[in-house]
Amino acid sequence: MNIEMIRAAQERLSGHVRETPLVSSPFLDEIAGRRVWIKPECLQHTGSFKFRGGWSAISALHPEVRARGVIAYSSGNHAQGVARAAALHGIPATIVMPADAPRLKIENTRALGAEVVLYDRATEDRDEIGARLAKEHGLTLIKPFDEPQVIAGQGTCGLEIAAQARAAGIETADVIVCCGGGGFASGIALALEAEAPGLRLRTAEPEGFEDVARSLEAGRICRNATASGNLCDAILTPQPGDLTFPILQRLAGPGLVVREDEALRAMAHAFLRLKLVAEPGGAVALAAALFRSDEIDGPDVIVTISGGNVDPDVFRRALDDLDA
Amino acid sequence: MNIEMIRAAQERLSGHVRETPLVSSPFLDEIAGRRVWIKPECLQHTGSFKFRGGWSAISALHPEVRARGVIAYSSGNHAQGVARAAALHGIPATIVMPADAPRLKIENTRALGAEVVLYDRATEDRDEIGARLAKEHGLTLIKPFDEPQVIAGQGTCGLEIAAQARAAGIETADVIVCCGGGGFASGIALALEAEAPGLRLRTAEPEGFEDVARSLEAGRICRNATASGNLCDAILTPQPGDLTFPILQRLAGPGLVVREDEALRAMAHAFLRLKLVAEPGGAVALAAALFRSDEIDGPDVIVTISGGNVDPDVFRRALDDLDA
Repeated sequence: MNIEMIRAAQERLSGHVRETPLVSSPFLDEIAGRRVWIKPECLQHTGSFKFRGGWSAISALHPEVRARGVIAYSSGNHAQGVARAAALHGIPATIVMPADAPRLKIENTRALGAEVVLYDRATEDRDEIGARLAKEHGLTLIKPFDEPQVIAGQGTCGLEIAAQARAAGIETADVIVCCGGGGFASGIALALEAEAPGLRLRTAEPEGFEDVARSLEAGRICRNATASGNLCDAILTPQPGDLTFPILQRLAGPGLVVREDEALRAMAHAFLRLKLVAEPGGAVALAAALFRSDEIDGPDVIVTISGGNVDPDVFRRALDDLDA
Repeated sequence: MNIEMIRAAQERLSGHVRETPLVSSPFLDEIAGRRVWIKPECLQHTGSFKFRGGWSAISALHPEVRARGVIAYSSGNHAQGVARAAALHGIPATIVMPADAPRLKIENTRALGAEVVLYDRATEDRDEIGARLAKEHGLTLIKPFDEPQVIAGQGTCGLEIAAQARAAGIETADVIVCCGGGGFASGIALALEAEAPGLRLRTAEPEGFEDVARSLEAGRICRNATASGNLCDAILTPQPGDLTFPILQRLAGPGLVVREDEALRAMAHAFLRLKLVAEPGGAVALAAALFRSDEIDGPDVIVTISGGNVDPDVFRRALDDLDA
């Protein structure tokens, strides 16, 4: 896993990925006590950065292998990113999702052109179903984060951040990235190391699911005690990846942790000041910039809004905060 | 009023304006029956295209005149655009607003650095107050649309659309623009005429306030019967401007008209598919693309989302539509 793979992914993504802008608001600067620069990957195709990794992995396959199709396990952003990237490549995608996933997510993934295979979480094994389907149809599994070409694709966002920070005159700053398994964070960290060494990666996670922050502190992979029960569903992974953690250990500063209600408040600020729709897991980095100022150094901070795929009911809860 | 003024405004705006991207979603394409390209000016500084005109007008003033400050009458997007552009120029801005304007808008305009002068709509005359303040302090009035340098600033959005359409391979298409007094629409129309003659401007307005559509059809300026009573408050002007109407008459296709509930539905689609916050008046062009397909020609259509400054309560109403 190295910077050359990220640069190669950027070439493959060119003309297909959306280069998201770097935006800001004086109102957010005032709350944070420093200049806050936001990289809104919620504006990426399918509403999250996951399209980058999906496109990168699919475009890196040998044409004959690619033509047989790909498979992914996901009920969320990774599924949509892979489904859309596969459709644009003109190849079949199979997405294995739990039968109790939200109806809208299942319908969206189908509408993006994927075949959705549902399984019963209680009685069936996802990996077994996936392995059988992959073998039967010659499908290639696209893992959500612990996969070099996926990390390379997510890292292209870091190349954009490096160039945009340079254009804005930012030489040193923390770059806070919403972190689940660490694919997005580690890809961006590698890109910054090569292109903008004055920018330091920081991870942001929801309280109770701060496996990466604890792992960074302990110097070894630590697991979360629980697997669910937080609105930041997109970034609830049991532990950092075997590929991603060593990269983060080498390059990331101390992990930042925010409460669920702070993620909702950050969503409300993104609505009011940036006109952007963030999902809870996509808002934790902004929440860290706004509400953990004392854990951040320097006159500038850069944050990702990693995704915007949020149910209307959850978004309403975030808006309720504005009335208080 | 000509293309050279728009090009000069673009030079003055360079490095200060946000170049908003051109985005799309396969879900919206399916509803519209053609490819829909969205220019989200809700992502512009202060949440609407109005920052372009404010910056253009202020930057065009003689430095000595500019240093004395500017004044604007507005309770909305124009006020915020002028206030922010003035603050970034380091000059004072006075905004004359009705005392019954929403508290949040008054606070925002103050927070952007402007002095807000409130007046009583029932007993005081806005123009008289403004003229007195302008004379006393040597302030320059920045009109919201019927002012060449404001039209030139809004037209810079049209230069961006022309370049982005070319990059996307779009040669002929309707460009639907949310239309109040016509500053945004006429500026874009002039830019397209010069830079992308295959792109034709269309205006979009809310039903009951379709003064521009009726004026275009009649070949003379027509007024609206009523002045308020629609959620699309940002684009409720009594009639097209004396400067803007002749430009639209020469360059625009037939005006498009949508219902208020269709504007709300377009906001819901922007939330769900684009992760963008649109205000009702900023969503009428998207509504026209989605719900007036039979009045539009060709495989592509380009629409502006002109602003995103919407109260949470109104946004909730738009989200309610998704549950139905």
